[in-house]
Formats: sequence, structure tokens, C-alpha cells
Amino acid sequence: MNYRMILYSLGWILNFEALFLAPSLIVALIYRESAGISILITAVICAAVGSLIVLRKPKRLKIFAREGFIITALSWILLSIFGALPFVMSGYIPSMVDAVFEVASGFTTTGASILTDVEALPHCLLFWRSFTHWVGGMGVLVFIIAVLPLAGGSNMYLMKAESPGPSVKKLVPQVKSTATILYKLYIAITVLELVVLLLGRMPLFDAITLTFGTAGTGGFGVLNDSVGSYTVFQQVVITIFMILFGVNFNAYYLLYKHRVKDALKNSEIITYFCIIIAAIVMITINICSMYGSVGMALKDAAFQVGSIITTTGYSTTDFNLWPAFSRTILVMLMFCGACAGSTGGGIKVSRIVMAFKTVIKELDYFIHPNNVRKVKVDGKQVEHTVIRSVNVFVMAYLFVFAASLLLITLDNLDLVTNFTAVAATINNIGPGLGLVGPAANYSLYSPFAKIVLTFDMIAGRLELFPVLILFSWHTWKR
Amino acid sequence: MNYRMILYSLGWILNFEALFLAPSLIVALIYRESAGISILITAVICAAVGSLIVLRKPKRLKIFAREGFIITALSWILLSIFGALPFVMSGYIPSMVDAVFEVASGFTTTGASILTDVEALPHCLLFWRSFTHWVGGMGVLVFIIAVLPLAGGSNMYLMKAESPGPSVKKLVPQVKSTATILYKLYIAITVLELVVLLLGRMPLFDAITLTFGTAGTGGFGVLNDSVGSYTVFQQVVITIFMILFGVNFNAYYLLYKHRVKDALKNSEIITYFCIIIAAIVMITINICSMYGSVGMALKDAAFQVGSIITTTGYSTTDFNLWPAFSRTILVMLMFCGACAGSTGGGIKVSRIVMAFKTVIKELDYFIHPNNVRKVKVDGKQVEHTVIRSVNVFVMAYLFVFAASLLLITLDNLDLVTNFTAVAATINNIGPGLGLVGPAANYSLYSPFAKIVLTFDMIAGRLELFPVLILFSWHTWKR
Repeated sequence: MNYRMILYSLGWILNFEALFLAPSLIVALIYRESAGISILITAVICAAVGSLIVLRKPKRLKIFAREGFIITALSWILLSIFGALPFVMSGYIPSMVDAVFEVASGFTTTGASILTDVEALPHCLLFWRSFTHWVGGMGVLVFIIAVLPLAGGSNMYLMKAESPGPSVKKLVPQVKSTATILYKLYIAITVLELVVLLLGRMPLFDAITLTFGTAGTGGFGVLNDSVGSYTVFQQVVITIFMILFGVNFNAYYLLYKHRVKDALKNSEIITYFCIIIAAIVMITINICSMYGSVGMALKDAAFQVGSIITTTGYSTTDFNLWPAFSRTILVMLMFCGACAGSTGGGIKVSRIVMAFKTVIKELDYFIHPNNVRKVKVDGKQVEHTVIRSVNVFVMAYLFVFAASLLLITLDNLDLVTNFTAVAATINNIGPGLGLVGPAANYSLYSPFAKIVLTFDMIAGRLELFPVLILFSWHTWKR
Repeated sequence: MNYRMILYSLGWILNFEALFLAPSLIVALIYRESAGISILITAVICAAVGSLIVLRKPKRLKIFAREGFIITALSWILLSIFGALPFVMSGYIPSMVDAVFEVASGFTTTGASILTDVEALPHCLLFWRSFTHWVGGMGVLVFIIAVLPLAGGSNMYLMKAESPGPSVKKLVPQVKSTATILYKLYIAITVLELVVLLLGRMPLFDAITLTFGTAGTGGFGVLNDSVGSYTVFQQVVITIFMILFGVNFNAYYLLYKHRVKDALKNSEIITYFCIIIAAIVMITINICSMYGSVGMALKDAAFQVGSIITTTGYSTTDFNLWPAFSRTILVMLMFCGACAGSTGGGIKVSRIVMAFKTVIKELDYFIHPNNVRKVKVDGKQVEHTVIRSVNVFVMAYLFVFAASLLLITLDNLDLVTNFTAVAATINNIGPGLGLVGPAANYSLYSPFAKIVLTFDMIAGRLELFPVLILFSWHTWKR
């Protein structure tokens, strides 16, 4: 194990955390907020500790999958812990467990909050919360790779560990160039949303923070009712951009390269849009009688479907009050998640598609045992290792889910609250149902349960294995 | 497709249904109950239709996996439909949908009931309900194979389709002999339980019916409070036998052959007992404060854990009132299920063990990509096809679960009720939580939801694929 390289990478993570804090510091200066001091102190601590560590460059830069996974998992834990300091120091979230929950929720683009009154926070801290969404969405290490030749030729391990989906493809041969392209596309669509929201007359601060939350599919808002009090136009714009940020970024790259056909014939993206349309239609019909007009029902249905399947977690209404059918659809969308290679979480549409095709293939196997075709996606045969990784992911997912659920039930809240709390954190959604519904928050859980849910957020964002590996005895033995 | 052979087998199924009805007819004669007439009419109909069909023996007896699966699925559907007639004709369950639900619940050893007052039923119908548990537990086709050379040399396909577990092993080279041995062991342990219950001074009728329900891991009782009003001794006896019937019957065969070591070193059975002990300890601690003494808490915890993990579904107390932690453990045990090759349902401990080992192996793969060992169970390498079948089973299970859940939510009951209703039927448990808890029943669901749940019971009992195959277009095309 290349311990020196792990430490060195974590040093850079701290340096970058200091960098990430800079925009929030500027916001504090603009609004002349005293909470800015805590941000400044945190940035200085991060920069100081980080710089000390990176002073000595390791002799061996080469890392393997194991180190890549460990670096990624520890990076996210470190980011959450140090990122929590401004909240604790400023006194706005006095408990360290709560603050780490909030910031992990930010970086992992979950959007679950322990705050009962978001509007009481100063602008600089609200900005920091939302900015963590934006950085966490496309990936912290992906960002660093784009800027810095961190692990020499072994960057792919970091990118693999951090990027969502069953198989991570490089857009171009170089990992660094791929990371740069991804961030350029990300920035372009982010700016586009910001401009459209500003044209829709949203105040600048709200537009910036909500755009960060949409882009990263995060879900932190700056008002207590999430997105409920914005205009219909603004809500529709956010709906559209949420859904767009749930699309595999490879498609945008192909569109940019004028390969429109290739971008559109991707079965994951087609399935993604089919699921969205089906869910919107079913929910609209189901909730129609609760609304004055079909239009308003459609607007809220589309917003909530877009928000949940992309694992953003914004809300325009308290969907906890919807009928069981609509709520169940939303819970299922929580598990489904967005496309691989997007900023969304969840199991991912591509895994669902492959799992479904595997089941169909098995049925065929029973019908014609001698005439079995391989599972194909987009006309190409899916490699055995990819199918295995999908299966193993789902199994690991179920085990982590079950263990987390059991642990948080010790708080003795009701089963729907517990089930959706785990679902909403491991899938990086934000709000669940029951006592953690869109009109509520996670403050009622005990510190122990909050630590479990924080673990779920990070494990879910990194797709389990980078985090699970930390608990394996085999990882640490010589 | 050998349609003639499918029809011929179904004819025999009807003949055997007539035979299965005979003991209930005797009960009706003993108690001089008029409901016996409806049983007699049903038996005559079954025998008449069945005999007509089997008059013409098909020229080709040979069947393949496809026909074996179709025969098995259609047999269970047919058994449920014809078995429902006595309830409908006698007027005790006027609705056909309700009656089929009740009888399918019997044959599949689910034990979910739509009856609000079980005690209002005459003895002969109570006996019929419980007897379906006993026959369904070890398998209807397994029974027929033991008596009749139904499908010539192709019996294995029927046995595979009906027997639970990821890989069905024959105890001896002949399928017929294996079936006979299984039924002999089944009868022996059934008689043993009956004798012990009678020694514990349980009335004969109750002892017989409860033994049937225990042996098949069914769960139908003859009193409205299930097993709650029997003595502590009788409850403890039932606890022990429920757990014994959840053990792989191969173990009993090995014990019978004096191969004690082989029987005990089976990792599935060891895990099964470890899970049971762990669950009992955790629940006892959790519910202790609700009870006067640790002893009574332990008794109820053990009974409920044994009842749920073996998917029997008896209850001595309303566990719906237990704390969230205990209830969540019970819900997880619903999914876990008993050992493969037992009369219990659920996913099965062996599949859980293999899935867990696959996840551990995957972790090892990330840690040491060049040094990966194969998954081993009981010292033997698990074949790739078995692991694949476990994975595909879990995927299919999740899809069927999700689809069923969505369909029954149209009734707009609460999420816990819906979730546990599907869990309790697809895993062949019986009672769930909420409005389908142990003190309630399934009468509140609409006919459509009852049909969905009936489907889940049969699909769960046959481990999905034999039933799913009926819906595949590939099955029926030439």
C-alpha cells in the first residue's frame, strides 16, 4: 500500500477545500457577514495543514485500484469534516455531528438538512452549502484531476471510484482531458441555467444557489419551503434543468461533437425519459383531483418526478400528502436514480436496464436452454464483468440498506420515516416521507442515527465499494 | 411444446385434488357438517374432469424445462381455483376472488387470510384450509412424483420447478425415490409434532390443524387469535417445530443415514440458526420492558422469530405493537426466509449467504485484483451458474416486488401496510404490519389487489420463474 501517496493526495484535497471556500468568503465580504470569519479560519486551517502535507512529494506516485478507492473515500470524509467547521465555529450549527451531516449532505448532493430554519443562516453559509453541491456533483477528484496531474498515470482509479455508473468510459484517451471536458460541459450548462433563471427575474443570490443545487442534483434551497414560493416559470425552468443534469454527460459531449444520432440512440437515456414521462402521467392522473387544474397538477408532478429521479430533492409541494400510489412511485424513483455519468445518484437507470435484461435472458434460458443470446445494450454485447458488477452492486446496496435501516430504527421512529430516510440518503435525494418529508427535516434523529445516515450519503455517492473497502480487514493487512 | 403432456399432467392434478379433499370429507362426516356437501361436489367435479383428461395418455411423455415450468405453474393455479369451490358453494366465502386468495394462501403455505372470523367456519373447511398447507409445504408435484411415474424420465424438471432453493439436489439418483424419502421424513416429523402437542393436552382437532400449519410453514390457525390462547408449553412446542421445518430436509436425510457430521457442518443451517439466535436476543432486549418478565419476552420473541423466518406466520401476540427496531427485524426476516429445501419460503438463507460472499469477493477483487479466489460454500467452489441464478433470482424478485407494490397502492392504504402485504405474500409469511398485521387480515383490499397478492403468493412459492414464464411471449410462440 502506497501510504505516502494516500497522505499526499489528502493534502491536496485540503488545499482544494481552502480554494472551494474562497467564493463563500467573497459572499461574506459582499454582505459584510461576521460568519465570514469562521470561513476564513477554516480556509486557513485547510491551506496550512494541506500545504504542510504536500511539501514532501512521495517518491512513488503510482497507485492501484485499492489506493484509488481509499483516497477517494477518505477525501470525501475529510471534505465533510473540514467543511463543517464554518458552521460549528460560527455557531449556526453548534453540534459537530449535525454540521458534518449537513456538509456531507452538500458534497454528496443529497440535500438532506438538519436545519429547521434555513432562512436564519447568513448568505455566506447558504452559499457554502449550495457550492458544495456544485463541486460534489461532478466530483471533487474529477475537478482536481482536471487541474492537477495528481496521481500521475493512475488518475483513472480516482475517476473510476468517484464517477457514478457501472462502467466509466473516458471521453478521450487522456483522463485529464476527459475530466477537463466534463467540467467545461458542466460549467456551460450551469451558466445556461443561471442566465435563464435571471431572465425569469429570480434574484441573483437565489438564482446562483438554486443553480448550484440543480447542477449537482443536490437540493439545498435558501428558503424554508424549498422551491415552493418561486414563480411557475422559475419552477418549470428548474424542472427542465434538473432532468437535463440527470442525463449522462457523454451525450452532451456527443452533441457538442455534432454526433446527434449517437447521443440520442443511447438506451439508458431513452429509458430515463420514458420512466420520467410514465411517472409524470401516472402521478398527474392520481393527484389531479387534489388540484384546481390539470396544468398545476402536471407542473407539480413533473417537478417532483424530475427532482426525485435525478436525486435532487427540491420540492414545490408537500408530496407527503399525495395519495399512496403517487408516493410509492416517488419512492421507487428514489431507488431508480438518474443516468450513469450524470451528477445524479441512486442505482442508475443503466443498472436497472441491465438487471431487467438479465432477468429476461434468464427466462429465455428456461424456454430455450440451447439457444441463449447474450445481454445486449445499444446493440453491443455487455461484458460479463459489467453484468457481474451490476449484480454485486445491487447485493451490496441491499446489505448496506438493511444494516443502516436496522441501526436507525433504534430511535424508534415509524417505519416509513426510517425506510425513506435511508432511501433518501443512500440515493442522495434529500427529503423522504413521513417525519423526514419535504416539509420536515432530519433534526429529530439521534446523533448516532445521523452518523449512520452521513455514512449512507457518502457510501451512496461513491457507489459503496470505495467506502466499504475501508472496513475490510484485507485492505489494511500487509 | 408438448401441449398434450401439459394437459395430461393437469388432469392428474385434478384427480389428486379430489384425493386431497377426501380427508376433509371424513371430517365433515364426523362432525355431521352440511358444508361437507360442497366438498363432495368439488371432489366429484375434480375427479370427473381429471379422469376425462387422463383417459388419453399422450404418445410423447418427454418434457423439457419449459413444459415442466408451465405444468408446475398451471397446477398451482388450478389447485387454488378448484380448491376454492367448497368455500364458495358452502357460502362461507361467497366471493370467488376471496376464496381463491384463501386457498392459494393455503397451498402456497402463506397463511394470509381474508376471513375476519375464522371460528365461524365449520371443522371440515378449517381442516381443508390447514390440509392445503401440509400438501403445499413439501410440494404437490413432489407428492405426485412420489406416487406416480407422471412424466417418465423428465420428473426432475417438475421437482426443480417446485422445490425451493438455488440448486435442487437429489438425495438419491432416482427422482421418484428422492420424492418418496422427502415425504417419509415429512410425515415422520409431522407425526412427531402431533404426538408432542397431544401429550401437551391440546385438543385433537387443534393439534392436527396446527401441526399441518407448522409442517408446511403455513400459518392458518383455527382460532381468531392464531396461537395466542394456547398454553406456554404448546407455544414452545410449535416454536421448536416451526424452526425444525425451516431446516433443509437434506440434513434430516443425512441424520437418518447416521451422517451426523455432514448434517451439522452445512453452512446454510449454521447461518440459519445464528440468524435466529441473534434476532431472538435483539428482540428480547428490545421488548423486555413491555413484558413482566424476561421469560415471557423471550418466549414471544422466539415464537415470532421462528414464525417469521420460517415464513409460517403464526402469532402469539400482536407484534405490530412492538418497537420499530423489533418490527424492522421481523420485516427483514420475512425477506431472509428459511433454508433451501425446507418447506419455508422467502429468499432463502443459502441465497443470502452466497450473495454476501459475492460482495466480500468483489471487495477482495478491488483490493487484490490479481489474487481473487472463487466463492466457496461448505469448502466447495460454487459454480458460476449457481451464483448467476442467485443474482437473477434477486433481480426478478425486486422487479416483481416493485410492480406488485405499485399495483396494490391503487387502493390508497398506507405504505407500511402495502409494503408488508407484498412482503408477507411473496415470501409466503401471512401477516404483515399495519392494517394487515397479526390482529388484522386482508379483507380490506380490493378484488384487484387480492388478485395481485394471490399472484405474489404463487409466484413466491414457485420462486418466480415458473410463473413469470407464463407471461413471456417467447414461451408460446412456435
